[in-house]
Amino acid sequence: MSVGHDALLSDGFVLSTMIRVECALVAAYVEVGAAPRGARVEIDHVFGIDEKGGASARGIDVDALVRNAVAGGNPVIPLVGALKAQVPAEHRAWIHRGATSQDILDTALMVVARRAVEQTRRSVANAAVWARQLATAHADEVSAARTLTQHAVPTTIGARAATWARGLERAVVRLDALVFPAQLAGAGGTLASFVEITGSTDAADALPAAFARALELDAPDAPWHVARWPVTEIGDALVQAIDALGKMAADVATLSRTEIGEASEGVGGGSSAMPQKQNPAEAVLIRSAALRAPHLGATLHLASALAVDERPDGAWHSEWPTLRELLRLAVGASAHGSSLLAHLRVDAAVAAATVGLTGGRIVSERLRGVLVPLIGAERFAALLDGDDDLAPRLRALPEAAGLDVDALLDPARYLGLAPRLARGTGHAGGGTAQSRGVDA
Amino acid sequence: MSVGHDALLSDGFVLSTMIRVECALVAAYVEVGAAPRGARVEIDHVFGIDEKGGASARGIDVDALVRNAVAGGNPVIPLVGALKAQVPAEHRAWIHRGATSQDILDTALMVVARRAVEQTRRSVANAAVWARQLATAHADEVSAARTLTQHAVPTTIGARAATWARGLERAVVRLDALVFPAQLAGAGGTLASFVEITGSTDAADALPAAFARALELDAPDAPWHVARWPVTEIGDALVQAIDALGKMAADVATLSRTEIGEASEGVGGGSSAMPQKQNPAEAVLIRSAALRAPHLGATLHLASALAVDERPDGAWHSEWPTLRELLRLAVGASAHGSSLLAHLRVDAAVAAATVGLTGGRIVSERLRGVLVPLIGAERFAALLDGDDDLAPRLRALPEAAGLDVDALLDPARYLGLAPRLARGTGHAGGGTAQSRGVDA
Amino acid sequence: MSVGHDALLSDGFVLSTMIRVECALVAAYVEVGAAPRGARVEIDHVFGIDEKGGASARGIDVDALVRNAVAGGNPVIPLVGALKAQVPAEHRAWIHRGATSQDILDTALMVVARRAVEQTRRSVANAAVWARQLATAHADEVSAARTLTQHAVPTTIGARAATWARGLERAVVRLDALVFPAQLAGAGGTLASFVEITGSTDAADALPAAFARALELDAPDAPWHVARWPVTEIGDALVQAIDALGKMAADVATLSRTEIGEASEGVGGGSSAMPQKQNPAEAVLIRSAALRAPHLGATLHLASALAVDERPDGAWHSEWPTLRELLRLAVGASAHGSSLLAHLRVDAAVAAATVGLTGGRIVSERLRGVLVPLIGAERFAALLDGDDDLAPRLRALPEAAGLDVDALLDPARYLGLAPRLARGTGHAGGGTAQSRGVDA
Amino acid sequence: MSVGHDALLSDGFVLSTMIRVECALVAAYVEVGAAPRGARVEIDHVFGIDEKGGASARGIDVDALVRNAVAGGNPVIPLVGALKAQVPAEHRAWIHRGATSQDILDTALMVVARRAVEQTRRSVANAAVWARQLATAHADEVSAARTLTQHAVPTTIGARAATWARGLERAVVRLDALVFPAQLAGAGGTLASFVEITGSTDAADALPAAFARALELDAPDAPWHVARWPVTEIGDALVQAIDALGKMAADVATLSRTEIGEASEGVGGGSSAMPQKQNPAEAVLIRSAALRAPHLGATLHLASALAVDERPDGAWHSEWPTLRELLRLAVGASAHGSSLLAHLRVDAAVAAATVGLTGGRIVSERLRGVLVPLIGAERFAALLDGDDDLAPRLRALPEAAGLDVDALLDPARYLGLAPRLARGTGHAGGGTAQSRGVDA
Repeated sequence: MSVGHDALLSDGFVLSTMIRVECALVAAYVEVGAAPRGARVEIDHVFGIDEKGGASARGIDVDALVRNAVAGGNPVIPLVGALKAQVPAEHRAWIHRGATSQDILDTALMVVARRAVEQTRRSVANAAVWARQLATAHADEVSAARTLTQHAVPTTIGARAATWARGLERAVVRLDALVFPAQLAGAGGTLASFVEITGSTDAADALPAAFARALELDAPDAPWHVARWPVTEIGDALVQAIDALGKMAADVATLSRTEIGEASEGVGGGSSAMPQKQNPAEAVLIRSAALRAPHLGATLHLASALAVDERPDGAWHSEWPTLRELLRLAVGASAHGSSLLAHLRVDAAVAAATVGLTGGRIVSERLRGVLVPLIGAERFAALLDGDDDLAPRLRALPEAAGLDVDALLDPARYLGLAPRLARGTGHAGGGTAQSRGVDA
Repeated sequence: MSVGHDALLSDGFVLSTMIRVECALVAAYVEVGAAPRGARVEIDHVFGIDEKGGASARGIDVDALVRNAVAGGNPVIPLVGALKAQVPAEHRAWIHRGATSQDILDTALMVVARRAVEQTRRSVANAAVWARQLATAHADEVSAARTLTQHAVPTTIGARAATWARGLERAVVRLDALVFPAQLAGAGGTLASFVEITGSTDAADALPAAFARALELDAPDAPWHVARWPVTEIGDALVQAIDALGKMAADVATLSRTEIGEASEGVGGGSSAMPQKQNPAEAVLIRSAALRAPHLGATLHLASALAVDERPDGAWHSEWPTLRELLRLAVGASAHGSSLLAHLRVDAAVAAATVGLTGGRIVSERLRGVLVPLIGAERFAALLDGDDDLAPRLRALPEAAGLDVDALLDPARYLGLAPRLARGTGHAGGGTAQSRGVDA
Repeated sequence: MSVGHDALLSDGFVLSTMIRVECALVAAYVEVGAAPRGARVEIDHVFGIDEKGGASARGIDVDALVRNAVAGGNPVIPLVGALKAQVPAEHRAWIHRGATSQDILDTALMVVARRAVEQTRRSVANAAVWARQLATAHADEVSAARTLTQHAVPTTIGARAATWARGLERAVVRLDALVFPAQLAGAGGTLASFVEITGSTDAADALPAAFARALELDAPDAPWHVARWPVTEIGDALVQAIDALGKMAADVATLSRTEIGEASEGVGGGSSAMPQKQNPAEAVLIRSAALRAPHLGATLHLASALAVDERPDGAWHSEWPTLRELLRLAVGASAHGSSLLAHLRVDAAVAAATVGLTGGRIVSERLRGVLVPLIGAERFAALLDGDDDLAPRLRALPEAAGLDVDALLDPARYLGLAPRLARGTGHAGGGTAQSRGVDA
Repeated sequence: MSVGHDALLSDGFVLSTMIRVECALVAAYVEVGAAPRGARVEIDHVFGIDEKGGASARGIDVDALVRNAVAGGNPVIPLVGALKAQVPAEHRAWIHRGATSQDILDTALMVVARRAVEQTRRSVANAAVWARQLATAHADEVSAARTLTQHAVPTTIGARAATWARGLERAVVRLDALVFPAQLAGAGGTLASFVEITGSTDAADALPAAFARALELDAPDAPWHVARWPVTEIGDALVQAIDALGKMAADVATLSRTEIGEASEGVGGGSSAMPQKQNPAEAVLIRSAALRAPHLGATLHLASALAVDERPDGAWHSEWPTLRELLRLAVGASAHGSSLLAHLRVDAAVAAATVGLTGGRIVSERLRGVLVPLIGAERFAALLDGDDDLAPRLRALPEAAGLDVDALLDPARYLGLAPRLARGTGHAGGGTAQSRGVDA
């Protein structure tokens, strides 16, 4: 689903991120004056740390590392051993010094998450731009608004696309508001080892921010070892993004139905065995992500609520694979969403024809307002009964003699604010909600 | 669980809220100049609308309403009939005019949610204040930091309470950032009926904000009939609040264990059959909420992702009972959380004694740094083997002759930043994360 | 959603069930010879216990009971007090004697669950019968098989209904396999109090079965106070039943779409404002249940996995409201499912016409087998390109001169085993799976 | 978490299973007489199919396959091309003939699931055996029964282990009852292509059973392309197994707490930095699985409920990664569970000492029965107040002169049926529940 999009979630990237995080700890010690400058230079050199965020896992036996990860329950312990073996004896002691494995894993998680969230954010923002383009381009083209699967009233293709855009844009707001704090708190969340090593509470206190800077993460206010909102907030924003993509994909899948045909995906989706098929392939993949994501988000919340003690007996271990899978879904679903919207083919003629399927009854809400005063509710009900064209019936009504039947039945004249909404003009006096949200 | 706290989630309050919402629509028509001022005055009078948000369901046959709700799938249709029957014929037409049942239910949901969120927010904020008080009061009192159920290093009672406070405070930030937009979009999200009724796109455009004002809700930028982030964002913030309460409750339950006894709930929890029991009764209730809440949040996300068409064929119907239950859990869990923390009894003497359970090995991280250079890793391991008091062993070490053994083994001298964190002083250079979050 | 169907899940029924359970404990004491026969007779009389499972809550102040439930975390403690107050002093001691509140609540839960499962089972079985009738009646009537929203190949209306029937029938198998054990294990799961009271391990050992018999529950092999599979197995079977109903409802909602119109619900679903609408109202309600049920089932599993100690600190408390809500959904969804299928209107003519929408391409899988050998893959692809009627194109093919074009393009001649499957004839050599399952 | 245990869930095994499934289709054609015997022999030879279930992916460019999988949404289409390229032209047509990609994936899923379930079943059964051994060995050794974290009454170490065993044994019953049907239904669930190819409805009808036999799967009664109970039933049984393991792990983690120390894991769990730690490492891993599994099970149910049409537009795609991850968790958690129980160290002396922590109050339930008749409820409450040793207090009571105080306070004399339950003797008259379950 995220093939071709999830290099950031690969084992290789996670491993090299953990190495970068260990190097950043050395850099932080240097910055607060505890370690000699040379330690950082040499260690960065050994592991190929560069300005672009690279790190090299050369010389690490990944299989051995994974095998040994089980015993300790996490991969940091064997990794530290493998790293030390490569560092000159002189500087070796600075590797992982004073840190607990959770410091490294939580921080690496944040580095990976930040990168994957950035990629997701770009794709969602692109998807929103494409949705806005569709909205503007088709702002006035009628389409049936469907409620509970039935034609309800007319809307426009553009109004529907604008609804997609609003959901996507809001998701971008949420992704932008995320924080990605480093974690550096030691074995019990007290930083005691760092005080011991630096010989100063002030130096220890400055260490997390220095560590964060080296990784372009946010400096933590305080340890979040068992206050896991940084993880759940990322999870919630990702699920919200996938929700917004999922809503769009659900509409595209529906509009692509053989019987509806108002939209089709512009690329892919063919079937060699059944050439008549135009599968909404990207919509299907997005929807499959949307059915899985809420459960992954729920697992993160559960882990947060069960974060007992100063490191819990299971909850913390359940976060890491769950967030990684959720990031993978978000990266993939958003890439597909952007692609889908960039290539979506909309068939305005089919949409317009479809609006006529009920013989004019799609404006029955309007007709009721006009006709019930003239002919009463009972005759009005009888008038609409059936599914043939309403125009002759209306013309045959003596009471309707003065009415412009064509105009009355024209769906394009019962669009309300749909064109305006499609063009992205918010309600008068509105904006409070969204802008308050956006500030948020 | 929320008994005594959930009047806002009762059927009665929801019903009177729906009545208020219907009256607010009339008020909105008056405000945009579409309906005569008298309509609002008379209708408000009939239903007892007052400034305090009250509304009277007098004269509504609730049972009949519930029974009739099934057929249409929602309770609005029978309610409108019941309301109209009480309004003078002259103004009757303004009741529910142009609205779809989703307008009323979504808006009522937001009114109920706003009230219940306010109540939750107050309780969570109170809980945070109590947690901060505990943190300050016990900032220097040692307690064992436990990781994976084992004593790891010393911390302080206050540092633990500060961790609770930070989670709770962050939850308050999220609750404060929520928006509660009114919904007024008509049958297909186009407001076509309102354009028809007011005779003006501008008047229709101004209607949602007027409607929102009458209910003290946020004015919507645009319809959110099938862009359901207002619902999921409320859900996420509530779940996050319950997570923070759950983490605290998990700690209290653990610390209350008969074998630990560092904390006990100040009220309740007795058992007449087994008088030795001091059940952490409020913690248990909070934890039961914390195990349920993530799944309710996930249901809301799923409904959002499946919001197909202009009103979906099931997803929308699954939101209402789910959000209501989640609000009920949040109101109840936060009330219990505030009460629990207000009355929590902390036994610093027991905590201090417990730190000594491992004969000094709780500072082994520190000992390692000091002793391994002196005696090597192998002898260090042998030294710590067993579970008797380490002091005599250390004193018997020739290499340790110059060490102040008592100081070295004193947990109170290996607290790192715990006292500082307990007093709420954020890390130097930190604050970025949280303050960016807080602005959010 | 379950209005009119959920009397069994009401507070009143649960309360009277708890009273019956307390009376059953007295009956069990009598049966094992520990209590005098008169105790049972008098106590049953006081609380109106009859053969039909009734019990009277006369004289119980329900509001006070609910209020007092919070302190102890469960309603049993105040209930016992209220019951004792009504029983003659002579027999009063037998009320709740030796029991823990979990014994009463778990057992009451099982009584309620058994009744609600029976009701659900009847409705699901009825739904399956209706689905089988549809399957047989429409076994040969063509309809488009749709995959990924696109017409794929022809099937029959009956084959689709048979798929519904198989899912429903399997759900019945699962519901039938459920066990509903009573719980009687005392404060710590050891029955120590019952040994003490009866003065005999054998009498205590016989007590749970006697207790179960008085309530028509299954006799437990052993306490399940913290082995919660009886709860999760009920949950899983209910979710599976709702899944099967949900699949059917998803199809009905889709087939009811204005553009498809192959099916419509026979009753309800009208909209006064938009008379053209034939909302699939029961399908929508079933789908809303299907979106909620999996999360409730997950909560039960989580509670089971977290059932630490001899009664857990939160997990147990999360089961009761969750199972009750799940039972409510199952009772309601199954009643709607049975009703929906009993009244479903199928329009075979529309279905047949719809199959022709792709101009014959719905049998392209077949055409490929026949034509590619004659004209090659490339010309075959060109032949199918477009969406006009294929018949003239085929007739114009020199290579196809010998083919019966009408037969080749006739969807009714490319139904495979659909009619056979619709008539319920399992595959030759099949049956292993299902019958092993059914024995199960 | 499942490292070293999950070869069956690896990409490699899944790929070779898909190849085996494609070969099994050829074998099935041969068996029903449609394809020449030579086709099977040669094709099996090319792909190294042997009796042990092997298959070779030699010559398949896995990376290319994964890349190409995205476009079609599944990996079967590129795989078929890759396979055909290796088969002699003469037999090439039989590869994947008449099948749809869902046939191959669903069937491969079942092959993988059957193998992983077998492995899980063995581990869970082993775990149950170890738990029974613990139960028997420690049947009479007292331990505190804890409810809501507090000492309630005495139980025995063995009774607790027997509770674990019962949960695990029940999970084995469920795993044993599972069916693993092959899927062979063609593009729309009608087997039309197979009727066309074999020229006979009877031959097509016999094909699925032949296909299943070649893979040692269950013969399907009928297609389950959109009746997904085979998937959810596997999911439910796996989650139930993980629940049972999780309950055990929760107890082990609790009993391993530094302050309790009644149990410890026999291997692993050490910390080099903090040598005093005896982390319950396997319990932690099991618990992390137990927190994730219910959400994966819920995703499968959701997919089942949303299996619209003859192949759904997203739901089916969400099953495959979800079930695979759930199988991975089950294989890993059960292996850890078996290992944990095989090596668990129980400290009966600590358990016995711990029972005395409340100075005898752990038998207060018993004392109440004996003493309240002698001294009244008020004096009884006063007697128990405090936490010192009760023996002197009791001896000082004039009314208790005739009582054997030592016996009365001896926890070992208030064990009820705990030793009997530990030895696995079910309740008299019980067994109905479990044996009905076992038959099931």
